Formats: sequence, C-alpha cells, structure tokens
Amino acid sequence: MSHGHWGKMLRVNLTEGSIKVEELSDEWLRMYVGGWGFIGYYLLKEVPAGIDPLSPENLLIYATGPVTAQPLAGGGRHMIGGKSPLTGGFAGSEAGGFFGAELKRAGWDMIIFEGAAPSPVYLYINEDHVELLPAEDLWGLETADAEQKIREAHGDRFVRVSQIGAAGENQARIANVIHDSNRAAGRTGMGALMGSKKLRAVAVRGTQRPPTADEQKISELGRWFRDNYKETGSGVFSTLGTNRMVRVNNEAGGLPTRNFQEGVFEGYDKIDAETLLDTITIKRDTCFGCPVRCKWVVQVEDEEYPVDPKYGGPEYETTASMGCLLGIDDLRVIAYANQLCNAYGLDTIGAGMTIAWAMECFEKGLISSDDTGGLELTFGNGDALIAMIKQIAHREGFGDLLAEGSKRAALAIGNDAIDYTVQIKGQDLAMHDPRVKYGHGLGIAVSPTGADHMHSAHDSAYQTEGGIADLRSVGVVKPLPWDDLSADKAAMMRQVMMRRVIYNLTGVCMFHAWTPQQETDMVAAATGWDTSVMELWLAAERAYDMARAFNAREGFGADDDLLPKRLFEPLSEGAVAGKVYTREQFIAARDAFYGMMGWDENGAPTRAKLENLGLGWVADLLESDD
Amino acid sequence: MSHGHWGKMLRVNLTEGSIKVEELSDEWLRMYVGGWGFIGYYLLKEVPAGIDPLSPENLLIYATGPVTAQPLAGGGRHMIGGKSPLTGGFAGSEAGGFFGAELKRAGWDMIIFEGAAPSPVYLYINEDHVELLPAEDLWGLETADAEQKIREAHGDRFVRVSQIGAAGENQARIANVIHDSNRAAGRTGMGALMGSKKLRAVAVRGTQRPPTADEQKISELGRWFRDNYKETGSGVFSTLGTNRMVRVNNEAGGLPTRNFQEGVFEGYDKIDAETLLDTITIKRDTCFGCPVRCKWVVQVEDEEYPVDPKYGGPEYETTASMGCLLGIDDLRVIAYANQLCNAYGLDTIGAGMTIAWAMECFEKGLISSDDTGGLELTFGNGDALIAMIKQIAHREGFGDLLAEGSKRAALAIGNDAIDYTVQIKGQDLAMHDPRVKYGHGLGIAVSPTGADHMHSAHDSAYQTEGGIADLRSVGVVKPLPWDDLSADKAAMMRQVMMRRVIYNLTGVCMFHAWTPQQETDMVAAATGWDTSVMELWLAAERAYDMARAFNAREGFGADDDLLPKRLFEPLSEGAVAGKVYTREQFIAARDAFYGMMGWDENGAPTRAKLENLGLGWVADLLESDD
Repeated sequence: MSHGHWGKMLRVNLTEGSIKVEELSDEWLRMYVGGWGFIGYYLLKEVPAGIDPLSPENLLIYATGPVTAQPLAGGGRHMIGGKSPLTGGFAGSEAGGFFGAELKRAGWDMIIFEGAAPSPVYLYINEDHVELLPAEDLWGLETADAEQKIREAHGDRFVRVSQIGAAGENQARIANVIHDSNRAAGRTGMGALMGSKKLRAVAVRGTQRPPTADEQKISELGRWFRDNYKETGSGVFSTLGTNRMVRVNNEAGGLPTRNFQEGVFEGYDKIDAETLLDTITIKRDTCFGCPVRCKWVVQVEDEEYPVDPKYGGPEYETTASMGCLLGIDDLRVIAYANQLCNAYGLDTIGAGMTIAWAMECFEKGLISSDDTGGLELTFGNGDALIAMIKQIAHREGFGDLLAEGSKRAALAIGNDAIDYTVQIKGQDLAMHDPRVKYGHGLGIAVSPTGADHMHSAHDSAYQTEGGIADLRSVGVVKPLPWDDLSADKAAMMRQVMMRRVIYNLTGVCMFHAWTPQQETDMVAAATGWDTSVMELWLAAERAYDMARAFNAREGFGADDDLLPKRLFEPLSEGAVAGKVYTREQFIAARDAFYGMMGWDENGAPTRAKLENLGLGWVADLLESDD
Repeated sequence: MSHGHWGKMLRVNLTEGSIKVEELSDEWLRMYVGGWGFIGYYLLKEVPAGIDPLSPENLLIYATGPVTAQPLAGGGRHMIGGKSPLTGGFAGSEAGGFFGAELKRAGWDMIIFEGAAPSPVYLYINEDHVELLPAEDLWGLETADAEQKIREAHGDRFVRVSQIGAAGENQARIANVIHDSNRAAGRTGMGALMGSKKLRAVAVRGTQRPPTADEQKISELGRWFRDNYKETGSGVFSTLGTNRMVRVNNEAGGLPTRNFQEGVFEGYDKIDAETLLDTITIKRDTCFGCPVRCKWVVQVEDEEYPVDPKYGGPEYETTASMGCLLGIDDLRVIAYANQLCNAYGLDTIGAGMTIAWAMECFEKGLISSDDTGGLELTFGNGDALIAMIKQIAHREGFGDLLAEGSKRAALAIGNDAIDYTVQIKGQDLAMHDPRVKYGHGLGIAVSPTGADHMHSAHDSAYQTEGGIADLRSVGVVKPLPWDDLSADKAAMMRQVMMRRVIYNLTGVCMFHAWTPQQETDMVAAATGWDTSVMELWLAAERAYDMARAFNAREGFGADDDLLPKRLFEPLSEGAVAGKVYTREQFIAARDAFYGMMGWDENGAPTRAKLENLGLGWVADLLESDD
C-alpha cells in the first residue's frame, strides 16, 4: 500500500451491474499521481478512438489525488473525467466541497464507470460496502431533493452525493455534476456523460483517515496555513470571495458583457461582491478542511424568484455569466438562475454563454421569436434567461438546441452564427477576457479541455517580482506585463499552467497560496515519497501530454487551438479600448508554446517528449492509430 | 549583493595589462548560477565565431558556484573554460583542491582573462589587492617549483596556485591547468589556452567567508554529511578511492586496455587499489571541507623513477591511462608518469590516450621508429611512455605531433590512423568503456566538450531501485540495465546528466552522495533563494544548451556526436565478449536524446527550447550567424 493513496479503485460495469476492486501499484501511483493523470491514463488505455462520447463505450472516471482528504486547506478536491460530449476530446472537471474527501475517506482513490445501465441507478459506497441501487425514484428530481432522499434512504445525513440533475438526465451537453447541491464539476459536459450511463448519483460515506507518511508535517502545514493565509493570495478570497473579480475585471476593461461584445458593464456595481454581500448573502460556506471560507450562501424571499440557501450562491463565474454577460444587473435574477442551474445540474458558464450567443443572434436577426417559441431573447431580459435555463435542462423547445452548446447550435443555425460564438473546441469561455490578459488566451487555446478557466492561468497575476517570487522555483524567470504575447510569455504560461496541473493532480484547490515547495512538502508528507517540485512538475507535463495525445488521436490539430474571431477584435470602451493582439502574434506565441512543450506543429506531443516522460506507450498508441 | 556569491568578477586584459572589477547582478546570478553557466554566457556574448582558440580573441574564464567555499563536503570546486584548443568547441574543466574556495574567499566569483600578455605573467590576488606580475622566472619551471617560488615571493605559504607547466607553455593541446601541484582541470586543453595568453599562473589568497543566507542550515548539512557519508555512495571513495574502478571495470569486462582493443587486463591486480594501497601509498589527502579524503599520495624511492609526494598520486583515470591502456602493469612507472604530467601540466588521460593510439599505430606499422626518433613505441614499454611524456610537454621530436592530440596527429599520419583514435570531437575518451555501460557512450557523444567523463554519467549506477531512489525527484522513472540503449535510457541519461551539470554549476564535487534536495538546500542556504530541484535543473539545461549553441555556431553537427569506430566493435574477451550495440541503435538513442532536449536534428537547441529557458538572445545569436 502506498501512503497518500489507498492503492485501490472501483471498477463499476453499469451494463452488467458488476463491481470490481482493482489495485493501483505504488509505481503507477507515483507516475500518474492523481486527478488528470489517472483519467488520462485510463482514457488512452481503454477508450477506443472515435467513439461517441455518449455511447456506453465511454468511461466516466472519478479520481482523487494524494492530498485529497488530508486535513489541509484546499485538500478536498476530486476530478471527474471521460471523453467530452461537448468537445469530443479529453474531459476533466474538478469540484470542491466534501465529496472528494469523503470518497477517499471511504477507502477509494478512484472509480471507473463503464458501460451504461439499462435503467437509472446510483452507486452507494459505505467504506467497503459498495452497491448499485435503483434510481428510478430519483430520476427527474431536483438535486437537493434527490440528495435528501438518498440520505434518508440510508438513514445517514452525512452521506455525500455527487449527482446529475435534469440537464444530465437529458444529456444536455452543457450539463454538469453537482455535489452537496451546490458544488459543480462544471465544464466539459460531464453531466451528459453521466446521464448517458443512466447513473444518477454516487453517494459516499467514509470515515477513515487516508494512510499518511508524516502526520506531523501535515499538521505543521495545516497550522502554517491557518496562521498565515490572510497575508497570502488566499486572503482576498476570504474577504471578498470570487465575486471580487466583477469589480477587478470591470476596471481592467475585460468584464464579459453582452457576449464579450463589451468589457465594461454599466451595471457592474449592482452585481459586485460588495453589493452581493450587503444584500442577499446570509452566510459563508467552505470546503473540506478549509479556513478560507470563500463561498457565499444567498437567500431571496421573493415570490417570482425565491432562492433557497441550500443551493449555495453565485460565484464570480455565475454572477458574470448570468449577469453582465447577458446585460442583466439584477442579483435576484442571477441568484435564481444559479439555483436553477444547481437544481438541474447545468453548467452556469456554458448555459450563460450559450444563451448570450443566442441573444446576440436574436438581436442581429439570425434567430427570431418564431425560433424561440415567442421568447424575446434580448440582452437584459431576465425572464427569458430563466425560461431558457428550464428549457435547456429539459431539452424543451428552443432549449433543445441550446442544450447542444453554442458551437453545435451555431452550426445548426448557419449563416455567420458561428462568428458570434466565443468558444474553443466547442467549450465556451469562462468569464475571463484574454484581451485583458494575453497569456490567458494562449492558455485556454491550448487547453485540451477547450476554453476552460481551470486549465489555463492568469498572466496578469505575474506582472511583478512579488507575483512571480514563488514561481522562480518552477522556472518562471521574470515578471511580464499582461499585454505581452512574446515567446517569453509563452514560456511563463507553460510553467504556470503546469503548476496548475500540479494542483489538480494532487487534489488541492488552486485558490490556496501554497508555494510550490509547500505543495511538494504536502505530497511528500502524505505519500512518503522523497519527491520534489520537479518530479511533480514532470507528472503535470505527463498528464497534460496524455490529454493532448488523446485529442490528437481524436483528430484535433493546430486549428483547434485558436481563439474565436471575437477575441481578435478590440473592445471599444474601457481600459483596453482599441487594443488587442493580432492573429499573427497569437499564432506565433502558440507555436512557440508548442515547441516549448515538445509538441509537433499540429500540437501533438512528439515521441521524444513522450518517451522522456516514460510515456513511450502513448507514442506507440498514436502511431498505431495513424 | 547576492548571498552565496559576492556579485563581483575580475576582468583582466592581458594585452593591456589592465584589471577591472565588474558587478554581477542578482538576477544574472540566479539565471546562470555558476561554473558552466557563467562560462557559457561569456563565451557566447564575447567570443566571435570561428576564432583560433589559441589567439588573443579567446577568453580564459575561471568560475566558481554559489556553494564554492561553503564549509561543506565537496564545496571546493571551480571551473576553467574558454573555446577549446583541442575540440574547437565549448570548453570547461573542473578541478577540486583548494584553489576554487580560496578564490571565492578572496571575494571573487569569477575571473575573465582576455587578450594575451606580451611576456609571461601571473595574476596575484590577495583579497582586494590584484596585480599582474612578471613570470619570466617561473616560465619553464616544474609546477611544484613554480608554486613554491610564488609562495616565497609573497612570503605566504598559504597562497593557492592555479598554473600551467611546460605543456601549457608550449601549447600542447592536451595541456591542463594544475592546482596545488596535483589537482588538474584536465580536459579540453585549458593549459594550451592559458599558455597562448602567456599566463603562467593565478595565485590567490583569501580569508573571507562568502556571504551566506543561512549559516545554521549549512552547518546542519555539513554535520549530516560527516555523520552519514560512510553509509552513502561517498563511502566507497573513502575506503578505496577512485582506483577501486580498476577492479570493477576489469570484472565488468571494460577496463580500457591497449587503446580500448581489450576490456580485461591480465596485469590488473598489479595496479589495482589494493596493490596501490599496499605498496607506494603513504597517506591520504583531501580537498577543501571534505571528510571523505579520496585522494592517495604516493612516494617511490627509486633511482630511475623517483616519485615525490608533492605531486600527489595517480587517480583511477591516470592509473588506467598510464597503465592498462598502454599494457603497463608497473605502478612505479605509472606513479612517475603521473608525477611528470603534473609537473608539466599535461592531461594524463589525453597523454595516455594519444600515446596508446601511437603505440597501436606503431604495432600496426603506420608509424615506425624512424618517426619516433628510435623509440620503440610498443604496448608495455614504460620507458617509451616516460620519454614521450617529456617530448609532448616540450614539443620535442615525435612529441610535437602527439602534443596535438590523437585526432590531429592521426589526420597528419593519414591512411587509416584515424580509425585507431578513440575520441569524440578530438577529445579522447576517459577510462570508461561505453561497451559496458551503453548510456555513458550516449552521454560522452553528446557532451559539448567531447568524450569527457565529467560531462556524462554512468548508467551502470542506476540499474536498481536503490540506485535511482534519489533520482526519482529529478524525473528518473525506473531503473534500467547497463546494456539498455532504448529511448527510456536516453531519457534517464538526460536526467542524470543534467544532475551532474547541477554539481558543476553549484561548485560541488560529484563524488558526494547528496540527494538532489540536499543540493538544493545547500544552494538555498548559501544564496537565500527560495529555490527548488527544478530551478537548478532548468539552470543546468540552460548551461548545457548554451554550450551546445556555442558548438552549433562553430559548425558542430550530428556527425560530431558519434562514437568512434572502435566502440562499435565487440570486445573479444571478458564479461561482455562479443556483445555491443549497433550503430543504428546508437543513432536512434542519440536522436531520441536530441528530441528530449529540444534540439533539432543537428543537435542544436531549437529557438523554442532556448526561449523556454529565457535564452531568446542565444537563439537570436545563432540566427544572426547563419
């Protein structure tokens, strides 16, 4: 048994209804570490090229990391992956909350679901007791209700539930997986994948501390964080939460407004963190082991839009994607939209972006009220937003098209509708405009999961010596301004993006300002490995390259690593009015990034690179599929 | 002022006789670290492409590292570099002893010599007092005599002297730089370069402790080593010294015998460590700060071959290159040859190899006694060896040709004489036969300095989990047998070779079994940098790539990264009889190594790779020379 991990995974065949336990060797665990690494490995090994992501041949994988469930701030995360129904490529989506830690505490590092159940089921795990149970009576329920029902069925209010809602059941490609009714593994359509398997939920109860090599070091790290986090980058999350980005981005001129047509929002101060805190916020919430408490729970007592605290509250991504992105400045609407998305298991970013695109098309005359069943899909129309969320989740009316995501919907609409999508590889941008941080655009363009805010980094954070201080140890050599898109920026992005992957592999939340050495210390303390920043960084490269190799095998190439048309157009107002990188600059930086990563001109990892990481088998796989 | 370094270098223009002090910025120091990094930077910046290495346009550079002069085992090293008179490419050669630490303790990180003195000089450094002094009266002296004379001139027996002897004065291309009369910066012909500048010596006195960020951590590391080294890989150096390799290599079937024609030597037990210890060894010696004491001092009271302890004693490389390599099994002859080489400043490896090649040519009839002035240059002829060493150092008789090194001599002799050289880029192999450790052959083939035992690694050491345990943290993923030459081996060699470069950059002796994390801790404690294994590893890549870029600019390509013909021929006796890698296997591994390093098909670092390391300026330089 390896420390930090249990060395055990569950393999659940939904078609057969069978459950097997498989061992994960120490050698394998050290090579692939966790999260993205685990998922990439099994997708490459077991998912044949070219399959329909919604077919039973796809896998749905839950993966933890070596730090998951350690009593450390941010150590409560897990990742859900498979072949993405949204992008057709590698998918992995993280979530916080308590589920990941609970799964680990039940004695499992990982679950692989294969096949598809003939009728709805859920998996119940209570330590070593694991069974598939019927879920007909859960099917169709809102997530909080289903969660409660599961807890009641097992007579245990501490059961942690990871589940889909109506959106996933109906295989909306922008459906997510919801935990604790309000923590989403949001991107890449994992809800649709789960729905295609007729798997409503995974319910877990666990009480064991994972095996730990150095308890004292873990305690020390935990104490250090509790004593110091307010003075680190985590401090700001503690005071203003993620919603602080509304004001920050508006001031930078890059607050996504009306489908990225604008970067400043006239109503920003009606939806910013300060207003949210002063009006509908009732308390703060947190994840496993975390003193930061960056989550805000809201409540609205309103006849039209009643918001229940059980669905949490809107994070920045939701506030923006249900607010400024749609020209909406009513927190009541935003909070209700958030609740609906959580109740239906719908990605707030994907839903907001698809609706924003539809609103722009509506205003430009590409879509009319004939298409929308009479809905006036105009910017600022909160009622239309609420109606569309319901339609998407249930694949009703015009929502059936939007449930496909903006790219597929635009291709169906035709004309130049595709030009108004703001997506990469079919996955919509999160609420971060590359025109105010050029490196971020590069990061989301090359991310194997499409435009994914979790799988890039924000170069605006590394403009000063202070900002890069800790990152010298991962090879960042000098601070660079946000509007630099030189090869030096590409180099910096490589290093900081891999650092983010390290967070993912280890199971730690990226909002925690641990230094790379502290992260390494955590992993060493959990596992007992005499590891280093470098070994983890190489594991991150390994995971990232496996995902890129998976995509290469699916036919992705350099043309899939481009920013959408809109992001080459300058914004007309705000701090960056009139200023943007050119397509040539962007492509030059992307190609430099390819070279730095050891990828070929199509963005596929070269054999040499793969072999250097001990991934010769991946190179063989790519060649055998040629 | 940066900790660990003083941030100060001396620039000595020998043509003008001027001395300047230049500052080294903190940012620059962290980027280039020391040793090889310092040398590569200035060679690329200041040495024009295509110059004659023996012209005044070449630089001679002395460089220390951040750990040099810290009171730590192995922390006494420095490096001497320039454009190599032997290979025409990047040159850098390390030495132990006390000189490097003394230079640092005098307050200097580095010295650059430019131009050439009109008449012999030496540089005298006593802390801040630095002057060029005439050296006419030293010219021609044996090294120990010159050292004593310098000490007497300054009335200070603690002055440390780095100097050339007759071989350097006469610009023998296999001349070295000698320290303390018995510690050589041996390879790449640095003695010839120094001789071309008419610089006989650098004499230093320093008493300051270099600035240190964390004295306590340094003490802790020092204490740890003293308490534990006997149980680490350093232990064996302590008991049997480097000469233990005579027996080890003979058993492995790869003890270089009669110019690498054979791998077992019938007289090995007459020259092995045990015999050396039992016969002529009188005491052990050590370097700055080191408890290991791997050096053995010998004495021979003999009329014909009297050996004085002041010249130390033969290390393994010398025992083999003056012994089995020439078919000589007389320790008395070997010890005397060692003394002469140290007295004349001649590389024992280069001299032994060139003479071995000449002996083979003599036996094969390519050279006759007409060429050699009557000397019977046959294997086993100790008198001929002694005579040839004297001739080479003084460029007399046939020695004038051999002073050019085996490659140039072979090209002058013509016919197939070149086929009997065992050299890469004009630098002869040290006493390690790649046919008993395939990865080592790859390492010496790609080394920018030619076949250089200091700039490869010995893959036979990493055949077990125990052997790679520490190296997982630098990305070595699994142990591989010595006769593996797959891409996995190329990957392993990349990682372990870069680790060796880290030793060089930091100024630490590679015989010390510090873990990568301990090395990092040393650097952090000395400098105060919040550094990591990874940052040092990237600095090693930076240094290595600068050297490769320097060579690319000089026209080196893939054909220069080949093993010599002999090393593709199987040995006929011993443990590996009849077994060898093929040329195709070797080239495949080399090309895989190129890809892993981010080099193009000619072995030059790509722009992307250079830019990833913050070396865009090197890429610009390469392109501007095209």
